[in-house]
Amino acid sequence: MTHASEFNILHPEPLLIVVSGPSGVGKDTVLHLMEERGDQPFHFVVTATTRPIRESETHGKDYFFITSDKFAQMIEDDELLEYAIVYNDYKGIPKQQVRDALASGKDVIMRLDVQGAATVKKMEPEAVLIFLTTESEEELVSRLKARKTETAEGLNLRIATARQEMKRAAEFDYVVINKDEHLDEAVDTIQSIIHAEHHRTNPRKVTL
Amino acid sequence: MTHASEFNILHPEPLLIVVSGPSGVGKDTVLHLMEERGDQPFHFVVTATTRPIRESETHGKDYFFITSDKFAQMIEDDELLEYAIVYNDYKGIPKQQVRDALASGKDVIMRLDVQGAATVKKMEPEAVLIFLTTESEEELVSRLKARKTETAEGLNLRIATARQEMKRAAEFDYVVINKDEHLDEAVDTIQSIIHAEHHRTNPRKVTL
Repeated sequence: MTHASEFNILHPEPLLIVVSGPSGVGKDTVLHLMEERGDQPFHFVVTATTRPIRESETHGKDYFFITSDKFAQMIEDDELLEYAIVYNDYKGIPKQQVRDALASGKDVIMRLDVQGAATVKKMEPEAVLIFLTTESEEELVSRLKARKTETAEGLNLRIATARQEMKRAAEFDYVVINKDEHLDEAVDTIQSIIHAEHHRTNPRKVTL
Repeated sequence: MTHASEFNILHPEPLLIVVSGPSGVGKDTVLHLMEERGDQPFHFVVTATTRPIRESETHGKDYFFITSDKFAQMIEDDELLEYAIVYNDYKGIPKQQVRDALASGKDVIMRLDVQGAATVKKMEPEAVLIFLTTESEEELVSRLKARKTETAEGLNLRIATARQEMKRAAEFDYVVINKDEHLDEAVDTIQSIIHAEHHRTNPRKVTL
């Protein structure tokens, strides 16, 4: 006798979801809105970084701001799912945090730069990769300029990097446009993607 | 320069969506609710059939009720995407209706029995196949019994067929449970699947 529950629909496997995209595209804002909505019990991965905390940020919420020594130890212990040097600072995803969340049955969502997302997909092909982008390259450049957290030199570096990153969307599973003033649409789309993924007959099984 | 529109997100390819599942699972009810909501400009395929019209049905809305001669002509002209003999009557999907709707840019949704859905997937692998099911086999049997449109013999035939059909969910892309009293959830899930499919980086291109 065949029960629908055989398809893991009522108790679906938790997903490993990576939201990525060029710098300036609004990854943080989109994920914060998802977190605020609280529609589903996601675990939002908190990245560890060695870069200095910004005034608007909270330790343990935006990032775990850790020392270079602590970060080096995590690398040695192979306790990072992915790490990279970004603008002279280190960022990485603590493996244990992801394992614990998946074990509790929660979908895990992480925000990663494009290179980091590609690394995770290579290590874990069952991850769902979402590429967040703007309607046009001009829109992205204008958002980067509006940030004003950069030196002129830093800004040019970010723009050049973002231009290259825009070309890598095809390596992802889904692409979502974050339209200016239509943040809710991007969040709706990401939630639809996750909802749909839970209903695949061939569910993804993440094994970290 | 790379624009997001290269990924067909702003003008995505229209999808060919097949909603199937065992007899009695509620395919008609679910599709009627989607049609009523009218959130997106779908084209709902109207199947042609040679079976007699039921009291509750409307010609051109529930089905095109056509003569056996007319149906035979459509078979000869290769003008049916799929057709089958179901309980001694013919049912089929007029190709031209699907072509016209896709050409107008609308997603096309069709309701098919499990065998018909498998045929369409073979002819058009880019179709999105959704398997609608109940929470359990017992639930399905009790819905079939509640219909009271069958003779005892007809009912047993439907139950036996439905039991076999339940086993074929794995041939589909997605599985959606139509819970009793939670029709809206099933429709939400189908709409999420369609929404997500429009955001794949590797869009499906239907060529009939």
